[in-house]
Amino acid sequence: MEIKVDLISDTGTRPSQDMRRFMAEAEVGDEQLGEDPSVNRLCRMAAEMLGKDEAIYLPSGLMANQISFAVHTKQGDEIIMDQTAHPIHYESAALAVISGASIRPLKGEGGIFTVEQAKEAIRDDDYHSPQTKVISIEQTTNLGGGRIWPLERIKEIAELAVDNNLKMHMDGARMLNAAVAADVNPAEYGQYFDSIWLDLSKGLGAPVGSVLAGSAEFIEQARFWKQRLGGAMRQAGIIAAGGIFALEHNVARLKEDHKHAKMLAETIADQKGLEIDPDTVETNIVLFSVADGKADLFADELLEKGIRVSRMEGKLRAVTHLDLSLEDIRYAVKHIEKTAKDIFV
Amino acid sequence: MEIKVDLISDTGTRPSQDMRRFMAEAEVGDEQLGEDPSVNRLCRMAAEMLGKDEAIYLPSGLMANQISFAVHTKQGDEIIMDQTAHPIHYESAALAVISGASIRPLKGEGGIFTVEQAKEAIRDDDYHSPQTKVISIEQTTNLGGGRIWPLERIKEIAELAVDNNLKMHMDGARMLNAAVAADVNPAEYGQYFDSIWLDLSKGLGAPVGSVLAGSAEFIEQARFWKQRLGGAMRQAGIIAAGGIFALEHNVARLKEDHKHAKMLAETIADQKGLEIDPDTVETNIVLFSVADGKADLFADELLEKGIRVSRMEGKLRAVTHLDLSLEDIRYAVKHIEKTAKDIFV
Amino acid sequence: MEIKVDLISDTGTRPSQDMRRFMAEAEVGDEQLGEDPSVNRLCRMAAEMLGKDEAIYLPSGLMANQISFAVHTKQGDEIIMDQTAHPIHYESAALAVISGASIRPLKGEGGIFTVEQAKEAIRDDDYHSPQTKVISIEQTTNLGGGRIWPLERIKEIAELAVDNNLKMHMDGARMLNAAVAADVNPAEYGQYFDSIWLDLSKGLGAPVGSVLAGSAEFIEQARFWKQRLGGAMRQAGIIAAGGIFALEHNVARLKEDHKHAKMLAETIADQKGLEIDPDTVETNIVLFSVADGKADLFADELLEKGIRVSRMEGKLRAVTHLDLSLEDIRYAVKHIEKTAKDIFV
Amino acid sequence: MEIKVDLISDTGTRPSQDMRRFMAEAEVGDEQLGEDPSVNRLCRMAAEMLGKDEAIYLPSGLMANQISFAVHTKQGDEIIMDQTAHPIHYESAALAVISGASIRPLKGEGGIFTVEQAKEAIRDDDYHSPQTKVISIEQTTNLGGGRIWPLERIKEIAELAVDNNLKMHMDGARMLNAAVAADVNPAEYGQYFDSIWLDLSKGLGAPVGSVLAGSAEFIEQARFWKQRLGGAMRQAGIIAAGGIFALEHNVARLKEDHKHAKMLAETIADQKGLEIDPDTVETNIVLFSVADGKADLFADELLEKGIRVSRMEGKLRAVTHLDLSLEDIRYAVKHIEKTAKDIFV
Ligand SMILES: [Ca+2]
Ligand SMILES: [Ca+2]
Ligand SMILES: [Ca+2]
Ligand SMILES: [Ca+2]
Ligand SMILES: [Ca+2]
Ligand SMILES: [Ca+2]
Repeated sequence: MEIKVDLISDTGTRPSQDMRRFMAEAEVGDEQLGEDPSVNRLCRMAAEMLGKDEAIYLPSGLMANQISFAVHTKQGDEIIMDQTAHPIHYESAALAVISGASIRPLKGEGGIFTVEQAKEAIRDDDYHSPQTKVISIEQTTNLGGGRIWPLERIKEIAELAVDNNLKMHMDGARMLNAAVAADVNPAEYGQYFDSIWLDLSKGLGAPVGSVLAGSAEFIEQARFWKQRLGGAMRQAGIIAAGGIFALEHNVARLKEDHKHAKMLAETIADQKGLEIDPDTVETNIVLFSVADGKADLFADELLEKGIRVSRMEGKLRAVTHLDLSLEDIRYAVKHIEKTAKDIFV
Repeated sequence: MEIKVDLISDTGTRPSQDMRRFMAEAEVGDEQLGEDPSVNRLCRMAAEMLGKDEAIYLPSGLMANQISFAVHTKQGDEIIMDQTAHPIHYESAALAVISGASIRPLKGEGGIFTVEQAKEAIRDDDYHSPQTKVISIEQTTNLGGGRIWPLERIKEIAELAVDNNLKMHMDGARMLNAAVAADVNPAEYGQYFDSIWLDLSKGLGAPVGSVLAGSAEFIEQARFWKQRLGGAMRQAGIIAAGGIFALEHNVARLKEDHKHAKMLAETIADQKGLEIDPDTVETNIVLFSVADGKADLFADELLEKGIRVSRMEGKLRAVTHLDLSLEDIRYAVKHIEKTAKDIFV
Repeated sequence: MEIKVDLISDTGTRPSQDMRRFMAEAEVGDEQLGEDPSVNRLCRMAAEMLGKDEAIYLPSGLMANQISFAVHTKQGDEIIMDQTAHPIHYESAALAVISGASIRPLKGEGGIFTVEQAKEAIRDDDYHSPQTKVISIEQTTNLGGGRIWPLERIKEIAELAVDNNLKMHMDGARMLNAAVAADVNPAEYGQYFDSIWLDLSKGLGAPVGSVLAGSAEFIEQARFWKQRLGGAMRQAGIIAAGGIFALEHNVARLKEDHKHAKMLAETIADQKGLEIDPDTVETNIVLFSVADGKADLFADELLEKGIRVSRMEGKLRAVTHLDLSLEDIRYAVKHIEKTAKDIFV
Repeated sequence: MEIKVDLISDTGTRPSQDMRRFMAEAEVGDEQLGEDPSVNRLCRMAAEMLGKDEAIYLPSGLMANQISFAVHTKQGDEIIMDQTAHPIHYESAALAVISGASIRPLKGEGGIFTVEQAKEAIRDDDYHSPQTKVISIEQTTNLGGGRIWPLERIKEIAELAVDNNLKMHMDGARMLNAAVAADVNPAEYGQYFDSIWLDLSKGLGAPVGSVLAGSAEFIEQARFWKQRLGGAMRQAGIIAAGGIFALEHNVARLKEDHKHAKMLAETIADQKGLEIDPDTVETNIVLFSVADGKADLFADELLEKGIRVSRMEGKLRAVTHLDLSLEDIRYAVKHIEKTAKDIFV
């Protein structure tokens, strides 16, 4: 079956013709020697956008998380995060392997925990237990359904972190979705974090990479880890150029994706057998339940019509992105309605 | 203040005069070369008791847990255990540091989870996630309040493990308390586990050490880890002899400790301001709540009378053991009553 | 000073216009889902070339080494390699960090050790020592001066490995230089190795990446490590296409680079104050000594003329590559002669 | 065959009757809570002896090395040591496993390297290479033949360390042999090291343990690692008392062992077929060669007469210790002479 409307993830976005042309013309050098002008330019753009001293270009968001954790912790330390967070489920236990650190999972709402929960999870200074060192926040929450961490909540948690000598980390896989939806300048987020990154290959439409920002001292340490983990490339300017193009052209339009997600959510909410609260759809992720254990069946039926969604812990997830037009979304809406009727009515 | 009745833990038990004499006369050799007759004898005793091929003597129970995990896993694997389990709170994140593995915590009842919970926690065979490799059970549950894993539950979970190609591990810090209280032969437990250990220094009254048992192949691998972690000692027969003495003299009498714990629990249940369900006190641990956030005050007041209890996650814990006579327990009962009245009436 | 002739490394090669055009037109998909056609095609090409079941695309050669080691070893294992090998000097101790394994360095000739040296370095099966698990070979030897491991030597060492149940790994950073210079089909090398990779971004002129090949089972495990280390990208087909183009167009021409290196070596051998045996220059690396501790001065003087070489452990290294024409080499020859005269005559 | 004269190692020394009595009467408590008076007393004795703030009692010397390294390094760091050093050959690659650090081996003389060698081995501050953090010295050198690091050499190396911001570590497995033989107060050694330990179970004759000393801040960190590695015991005062007794009674008498070693060395030097320079026998280790590849035969023949020596990298090693009387040594002398004649004359 050919896939017509791919809602499986915004990671699948493909570079446009304009982006490809821009990439093909990129000036390049050896980035391991700091000599790639396009990589350097992208890093300056991201550092400025996030209000940080410097930034470093990396082949993936996972590496941005793991390098941040490796720099902030020493072995035996612990990181507080929501129980739905990406490092718990999708990073192959990299934190334990690379940093020798453990995770303290919190039971938040839609991936968002409270300052009280965080406070209670901080360990005593006692050699029996892991030692809390970092609080990590995923903006937006992926398994939590694309929810936005409000700036006020972030601020409170950052104060707790300062009081307890903890580092703050933002997993910014979809941080610009949050910034656009909540109308917050990314640097306003950045001020509260010791490490913060944004992904270029999701809603922004670049083919590869993330940019991790922090203090000059943090980035200096991050370079060691980039090398050690195999993230130091050569003429990476080719792909970094995709990131430059994305930051210049594809940020504001994330609003379109959010509007499309809302359309899907409202359609889903109206169907018998499907369940979602459209008010919780704040960005481009639509996480919904299917009654009677029929999630797999529902997803299979959609796939028959060329619509691909993902299966996550018993639920289904549809993600909107820049490769999907209004027409595509309408096609999805139509077939979600039809499929729900077929199954549940 | 001199401590008269130390309920802080059964880890504090001191060797008796008879045990000391037995230890002083122990035959010894170089255990790193396998030439210590007392160590060898203790290991044969423990292996037989637990129904396993072989056993290895270790300086601590923590090392028994960590060596088992290190042998069973490779980096990036995951271990299922209750959220109250010892490796999560009291092992300084050793699993991440030593094995590079992660923990999947389950929300059990009194430290005991169901086979359904375990089943749901097993990861898909997918390179994004950690890979489940071990189910670990703490017998009895410490932070869970000394509860006993029933043999039937263990059997069901072991079947799940076999079906999913997982290893079974028992943290047997107080396993003989369970065996004595439930009248189960330790080898009946042993049959369901790939690794199982018992602690000699808690209720059994020996000064140092644990014995870890498993298949010959498992113990062969465990020797590498014992050396690597610094657990290979020299004329360890001196302390191993304490373990031999303990297994010969101090097992059956654990019933006394359980009776004493029940006395304390019933006293506590009767007091205004203190809360416990005495039916949940199955062995030698008495975990109770104090009303109005007065746990610290209550513990301080008891300490004034020479009674020491421990503070655990907002609750108080009293542990009975072989250094406490009926008279000591009566002294504690009297002062618990008195202190509760002073504070709450 | 503008750099006219950059001999610092073949890592600095830039994609040609034709390569850029080919990349810009690459078909792409989400490589984390195995859906990128260009990545898939490159992997099939490399697997076939190296005579292996499958291959995996990675952002760097370092990651290819470290993933191979991680799959082949468990913690506490040891890898035999020459004392000049890349993982000892240029991988930020990644082997210890990622795999928890140690290195047994051998004192070879030009980076090439004998089967007797390797045999003697294999550890006894004894829990006191690390356990030998892998023999790693760097083809060509970088710090050894671009020397070629002869096929016969490789065969002998592979037999030793089989006899001792060890894995064979080839660090193929410049393996195609060896294949072309020695007129050996890469698959002839491949047959002796459990893991073998080639670098696309050095003499082949692609901007980013390496391809690691092995058995289907090996690659299955490698996927976990690629994810865990942050090497799983998205629409990586863009850069993989550079690799496809390189394998199709830039292999045979490595002979040119070797000829250029020979020209430089012969020039250097003729100068007073410079020392090299031109017979040892087998590929594209020219490693030479400068008398009287004047290596730094000599390099600085060359740089004044726009010629950049690298400094390595007291020696100077010049590397030829596809961005250097015969004219460039002649320019270098002229100024090497002139500079040597200025300093030493 | 019964072993009459066991020269295999001083690790095999057994506690005397007086030591056993002293141990049996030791006052004990829970050392994990800092409440064991005998452990505390031993630690104060060792700290004072070594001129350090504090000390910590550990089950083995290996753990003392590994904890020191773990505290001094972060992942990716490197430690300089002689190529014969214990952590390279007898610690199961623990440094890589536990600390994620690498070793830079130096080719010293009898296990003793020069300050120039150390200086050259220090890495540049460059993210490609491991980062040098510690210089480790083994006093006396075991595989080096019991050689003593002269105080002057130590001082020079310590100055190099200070200049380069490196930590100094002494593996003091037989440090008191050096102190007694060279007539140096152990605190004179101690002043040059950030971490320094002595072994109680070798020539000192205690059954178990080592004591690691350093600054208060260092010991604070060491406690975390002691717990994490499973070295935190309970009523360890029983074995610590053996250490107290050893420090009080068995230090000065190490001179006897050195005299005995000299007797053996002179005998060996006189035999056809055996080779040793008696001037290199400075303490209690006698490392000698046997001609014509007959080391194994020679060791087997000695064993027939009840004399056990160890085989080390093609050589034989005899170690004298407090369980061997002058008579035992004479017995060994006689049979070494006889066996050498039988084989070589
Ligand atoms: Ca994309
Ligand atoms: Ca770290
Ligand atoms: Ca005890
Ligand atoms: Ca393992
Ligand atoms: Ca290149
Ligand atoms: Ca001893």
